[in-house]
Amino acid sequence: MTIQEIRDYLGQYFDAVELVGNADLHITGPAKIESAQKGQVSFIANDKYNRYLATTEASLVIVHKSQNIDEFTNIPSCIKVGDPYSAFVFLLQKFATPRTVALQGIASTAVIGQDVSIGQNVSVGEYAVIGDRCSIGNNTVIGPHTVLLHDVSVGNDVVMFPNVTCYNGSLIGSRVVIHSGSVIGADGFGFAPQRDGSYVKIPQMGIVEIGDDVEIGANATIDRATMGSTVIGRGAKIDNLVQIAHNCKIGEDTVIAAQAGISGSVTIGRQCMIGGQAGFAGHLELADRIQVAAQAGISKSFFEPGIALRGYPAQPMRDQLKHEAMLRNLGAMKEKLNKLEADLKELKKG
Amino acid sequence: MTIQEIRDYLGQYFDAVELVGNADLHITGPAKIESAQKGQVSFIANDKYNRYLATTEASLVIVHKSQNIDEFTNIPSCIKVGDPYSAFVFLLQKFATPRTVALQGIASTAVIGQDVSIGQNVSVGEYAVIGDRCSIGNNTVIGPHTVLLHDVSVGNDVVMFPNVTCYNGSLIGSRVVIHSGSVIGADGFGFAPQRDGSYVKIPQMGIVEIGDDVEIGANATIDRATMGSTVIGRGAKIDNLVQIAHNCKIGEDTVIAAQAGISGSVTIGRQCMIGGQAGFAGHLELADRIQVAAQAGISKSFFEPGIALRGYPAQPMRDQLKHEAMLRNLGAMKEKLNKLEADLKELKKG
Amino acid sequence: MTIQEIRDYLGQYFDAVELVGNADLHITGPAKIESAQKGQVSFIANDKYNRYLATTEASLVIVHKSQNIDEFTNIPSCIKVGDPYSAFVFLLQKFATPRTVALQGIASTAVIGQDVSIGQNVSVGEYAVIGDRCSIGNNTVIGPHTVLLHDVSVGNDVVMFPNVTCYNGSLIGSRVVIHSGSVIGADGFGFAPQRDGSYVKIPQMGIVEIGDDVEIGANATIDRATMGSTVIGRGAKIDNLVQIAHNCKIGEDTVIAAQAGISGSVTIGRQCMIGGQAGFAGHLELADRIQVAAQAGISKSFFEPGIALRGYPAQPMRDQLKHEAMLRNLGAMKEKLNKLEADLKELKKG
Repeated sequence: MTIQEIRDYLGQYFDAVELVGNADLHITGPAKIESAQKGQVSFIANDKYNRYLATTEASLVIVHKSQNIDEFTNIPSCIKVGDPYSAFVFLLQKFATPRTVALQGIASTAVIGQDVSIGQNVSVGEYAVIGDRCSIGNNTVIGPHTVLLHDVSVGNDVVMFPNVTCYNGSLIGSRVVIHSGSVIGADGFGFAPQRDGSYVKIPQMGIVEIGDDVEIGANATIDRATMGSTVIGRGAKIDNLVQIAHNCKIGEDTVIAAQAGISGSVTIGRQCMIGGQAGFAGHLELADRIQVAAQAGISKSFFEPGIALRGYPAQPMRDQLKHEAMLRNLGAMKEKLNKLEADLKELKKG
Repeated sequence: MTIQEIRDYLGQYFDAVELVGNADLHITGPAKIESAQKGQVSFIANDKYNRYLATTEASLVIVHKSQNIDEFTNIPSCIKVGDPYSAFVFLLQKFATPRTVALQGIASTAVIGQDVSIGQNVSVGEYAVIGDRCSIGNNTVIGPHTVLLHDVSVGNDVVMFPNVTCYNGSLIGSRVVIHSGSVIGADGFGFAPQRDGSYVKIPQMGIVEIGDDVEIGANATIDRATMGSTVIGRGAKIDNLVQIAHNCKIGEDTVIAAQAGISGSVTIGRQCMIGGQAGFAGHLELADRIQVAAQAGISKSFFEPGIALRGYPAQPMRDQLKHEAMLRNLGAMKEKLNKLEADLKELKKG
Repeated sequence: MTIQEIRDYLGQYFDAVELVGNADLHITGPAKIESAQKGQVSFIANDKYNRYLATTEASLVIVHKSQNIDEFTNIPSCIKVGDPYSAFVFLLQKFATPRTVALQGIASTAVIGQDVSIGQNVSVGEYAVIGDRCSIGNNTVIGPHTVLLHDVSVGNDVVMFPNVTCYNGSLIGSRVVIHSGSVIGADGFGFAPQRDGSYVKIPQMGIVEIGDDVEIGANATIDRATMGSTVIGRGAKIDNLVQIAHNCKIGEDTVIAAQAGISGSVTIGRQCMIGGQAGFAGHLELADRIQVAAQAGISKSFFEPGIALRGYPAQPMRDQLKHEAMLRNLGAMKEKLNKLEADLKELKKG
């Protein structure tokens, strides 16, 4: 791909794309600014990386339109654009090497149940097991060893990597990506305590519904509802090893980082950002666009959209930061207290 | 199922079951009180849901025997009982739709090792692999793609969902449920440090023993003992993504919520309740019926049965709540301190 | 194995190995000191277990060379050595019963892609799937149901247990052990936010590189780099359910306990010890030999080798312990404050 072709490609996504330098060089692939070699394209989206501009061997660097590049004579070419980070992401998509999760078509070792509906251009990998009455949309890829129990519905353009398990009745939208080892629709953790201290299992009769454009990481678990549905909203992104319990509702475009745990019947709004290892007590509600810090413990509902939460128990960021400052200040308080005590003692004497 | 039939069914479990209203209506299934439709049965076990009684479309509601229902004329029928929650759980079991984890019999693609003993009425799913000298009890279901290494013993009426892995020598009781992705009997995390900073692996020669009536969630890990057994006591319930390290002993009917982590050689008593994401240091002991709050960090043993623990490091609830109140009160302390300082200054002047 | 043979075996590893008692007894296996039976060998490496010396039924006990054993007449034999713990670990290796992960050779049900290179004496288990252009070194064991996507390279003497997934391009060294359910090389969690609140996936074009002698527990996840490599250094040990995000570099011989989570682009030095459930913010750096306490939250880089970190946000142990002591002392501070207030009030009156 020549630099001119890259410029034209980015021109489809951005209004002002300015090319400075040699348009004819051939670019072989993307790289980080600190390790880019001759022939590679890199980018600067954060001032703290500017120092690499003087030494990088990249043949092309994507920079912000305001970036002054006059002094960086070692770089053969620059492309200036309003959002260099997004521009580079689009370039990565262009350069991404194709990955084969499963060969085209239904592998001869795949087991397909009865009354299964399979769309056009579908791949089902080696040893995949598709239960009775499942439906799979067009262009979807089911990885080797992935198991769908019965009555699972999968949309178009979905990719399930190897070793995913979907329990019966799961509804999965289009353009969903599910990474290896994730378990969709296992039973919610519901047991009714008996007088003798033992438990009776509460049948988990609901399902999991996953909206379009959701991505789910590796070894995540999303439990089915007791009744009704556990819902992952359109566009939500869920990282590795996340636990989402029965009857949760995760809002559209909400992002949940690795190892966070959402207890039963929690409702999270749209475009929230949940940090890694954060935990939620059950039956809570979070408004839209709330940001939860890593390792925070959410013990109650928060209804104000857009706030940031942190700490255990979590509270709004301004309160929590004030609290943490007070904690850091404890030593000074103690000293002041001791000084007052000494002063008072002296005053009494006098 | 008619309401009369439901009344009779519950009569098997509860002494006083009072039916008010039309006994002949046909009930199609259960639903939550806030979303129940005509023909469905719901329940009220918590006063805060009473408000839905005025608007629910349920044809039958299970309520507490003390509930006054005279004013809720929209509900065709009620059943009054001493424990409406448990009554509803029994009803859920009645209405639960059957789930097929594996077809009856041994799938032709299952690989069965040598000297394997298989009971009556067993299902082994597609591509399951059963190692040499395993034994599987009556009515047990081994899901597709589940792997038992050699010398695993599984009791009667067990359900293993797809993609479970049991390492060699695991002993699994009767009526155990293991959800997808869980790994039973992987090596404990034991390495002996060497002078050069590297490690030598400590062979993990023990096994895992899982008692009767245990349920284990999805993607949980229960490591084998270094020597002897890691033991999960009868009736224990273990949620998704829980880690139980080598040589732990988990007491009977103890419940462990998602993502909790129990370090090596911890002994937990009977009927304890461990909150989500709670963590335990190694070689500790917990008495019976102890409750551990979510995200708590248990750093020492607690021998008093029935206490509640919370915080990091965790302490008994009353101490921890006092501590947390003191923390919340820090601002007031600081103000008081500043006021005292000012007063004293003035006093000195005077 | 006779006691004399055990003495001779340990003599290969330790300079001074002193045998006291009957050298001819036959030893059947190892056991913990508190549960050892006649015919078994046990050890004492910690004074707090000395009390069991008076009652153990072990036929042989490995003790420290300084241990006085004159009074423990019930023990037929002792071996004295400078490091009884390591000596016992070597004995465990001697007694370890062989475990069969997969039968010798390539199972007839394994699916091997095109242009795959397989070394000598390799085992590939039932239903394993090996993608195109993979290479597998000598003596390596690939467990049943393990899936390697294309272009994966695996060294010599590796053991992968059942149900492991390696994504395309992963590079795995020699003598690596990977336990069941772990996912190597899934996509890093990278999404570029768009103006409408949705996200565009950032292609994850890098790989995972795992050095020699690494062990990875069950259900762990190690994500591929966005560009370049996520690197697990030689000899590192990673426990169950650990999350290592894209572009991390884990130093040689570093140990990471269960459920710890390392965010993207974190660099951890050599011979560090990371406690269970500890969490790291992204783009941090840790020097060599740093110890991180369980559940700690690392929010910034630490460059001093060998320090211990604890708390949230984590700080050096001495600061954190001082801080925790201050917190425990809050009640006393409050009392002192109230007393000063009363004193001052009285003083004013007077």
